[in-house]
Amino acid sequence: MYTSEELSKLIQQGIADIDYPTLAPHLYDPVRYTLETGGKRLRPTLVLMAANLFSDDIRPAITPAVGLEMYHNFTLLHDDVMDKAPDRRGRATVHVKWNDNTAILSGDAMQALAYRMIAEAPAHCLKAVIDLFNTTNIEIGEGQQLDMEFETRNDVSAEEYIEMIRLKTSVLLGCALKMGALIGKADEKSAQTLYDFGIDLGLAFQLQDDWLDCWGDPRTFGKRIGGDILCAKKTYLRIQAEKNAPLPNVTLADGEDAYIEAFKNYYVTSGAEKACREAIASYAQKAKDDLARLPIPAEKLAVLTALTDKLENRNR
Amino acid sequence: MYTSEELSKLIQQGIADIDYPTLAPHLYDPVRYTLETGGKRLRPTLVLMAANLFSDDIRPAITPAVGLEMYHNFTLLHDDVMDKAPDRRGRATVHVKWNDNTAILSGDAMQALAYRMIAEAPAHCLKAVIDLFNTTNIEIGEGQQLDMEFETRNDVSAEEYIEMIRLKTSVLLGCALKMGALIGKADEKSAQTLYDFGIDLGLAFQLQDDWLDCWGDPRTFGKRIGGDILCAKKTYLRIQAEKNAPLPNVTLADGEDAYIEAFKNYYVTSGAEKACREAIASYAQKAKDDLARLPIPAEKLAVLTALTDKLENRNR
Repeated sequence: MYTSEELSKLIQQGIADIDYPTLAPHLYDPVRYTLETGGKRLRPTLVLMAANLFSDDIRPAITPAVGLEMYHNFTLLHDDVMDKAPDRRGRATVHVKWNDNTAILSGDAMQALAYRMIAEAPAHCLKAVIDLFNTTNIEIGEGQQLDMEFETRNDVSAEEYIEMIRLKTSVLLGCALKMGALIGKADEKSAQTLYDFGIDLGLAFQLQDDWLDCWGDPRTFGKRIGGDILCAKKTYLRIQAEKNAPLPNVTLADGEDAYIEAFKNYYVTSGAEKACREAIASYAQKAKDDLARLPIPAEKLAVLTALTDKLENRNR
Repeated sequence: MYTSEELSKLIQQGIADIDYPTLAPHLYDPVRYTLETGGKRLRPTLVLMAANLFSDDIRPAITPAVGLEMYHNFTLLHDDVMDKAPDRRGRATVHVKWNDNTAILSGDAMQALAYRMIAEAPAHCLKAVIDLFNTTNIEIGEGQQLDMEFETRNDVSAEEYIEMIRLKTSVLLGCALKMGALIGKADEKSAQTLYDFGIDLGLAFQLQDDWLDCWGDPRTFGKRIGGDILCAKKTYLRIQAEKNAPLPNVTLADGEDAYIEAFKNYYVTSGAEKACREAIASYAQKAKDDLARLPIPAEKLAVLTALTDKLENRNR
């Protein structure tokens, strides 16, 4: 089994080795800029971890894994244009550093490059990998569409919200794990179980992100605490709270800190905070149950179990 | 052999049969809108024509052919956002009818749907078809990048211009023909010869488009005569003219008609008009030579030869 450090090195090397076409070199300046800003590299790590569960030789999974990271960064790039986001990971976004057109076109190029890398999956699973990725790509666009539609709706249910984050976030984690499993020659059932694990893990992660926006540690959360509250984002917390109780009697004129505090209090007293914690725990448990269904000894699953545990610990 | 009318019907039916996902139905409203505005359907027609050269059963080529039309429309949609184009084919563009974000996201969805359809190519050629399309997709982005870069450059050579239109326009025609040939189980050499035919045909077409912008028949050209001149577009005519003679002594203050006339006269007296006609004739001849290299009787190639002839006739 590869250690996390070894996987991280392989991914870093894979990103450094990307074979950029040469006919219009400036097209790839924003692509390099986006990829070098880092991030957790969660998706390629999941591809390689899953491949390693079934195969000692994970080299055939490296290029598709990097392709998935390329794809993920494409979605962030276009999302940032649509959200008019000024920065990401502490640096100016591409549409700010260059312009909207450059961001649109280099994003399109990233999607194309991602497909080229993913299509380097071995012949024994190429069709399955391409079909899986196509479905995922379509679903992620649908998730983004629903997210945008929810901004102008006041009747979004908790179930609809879960479905939106499943599409926008979870399916890519499921895709990463299943892709790795397929490349590692897993049986179909195990590959699907890992997909399910990715869905449950992703839902728990996204709900935790909603929770951390209120109660996270500002030193480790990376984003401003209360950001979702200030922009009135329809998070799981807000949807659950509004179901149970009227909005708090506060406006931004009372000051941002007071506004955030009033909403945090509202989420607690309305029971939304508890509901959110319970939902996180429930999806984390589902994720663990998924792992337990795999015909793989627990010690080989330690890294994936650790990912799930981390969720629950960060939650307290 | 299928007639052009039969092919056209198959493509129309294929577009009507597109299996749109259902989780976020509004995502596909702009996609349907874009596809129903029509256009010549040249790319899917080329796919089916090429398949039919080698196989009587062209049904396996229909979905990939429609996928290529979907892809082509995606590039137009994003190009229109980048160019801030108000209309296309007589209707408001997507970013005008909806907004920029909708155009970006539905364009991305079109690229995803295109891949899903193209990946329905038969198993015997799936890898080759995907690789061909990935390369083409990347090259088209590079062509668009070069086109944008040329806007702010004053030293673009005729060779660079040809390379740009090869990437932006021709490779997709080559891809369409080669894709059809691969699906129809053509030998590798014939498939590549058809690709070359597509490149030469595309170059002749694009150069003819430059020429028609000045001397086309307003009733059939579809765009305003002189549009390229008014926006100072660096066409083949302008690049060739500037190489030979100083710009005409005219400004837009002299009136648009006078301005257009002065430039048309400049293109003729500088020899650019002649150079453009010769380049069109040369690429059209190359395209015919490509066809002659195919191990296929001339009567089966009649539709493709007719496409090339049409070029030369429209040119006079």
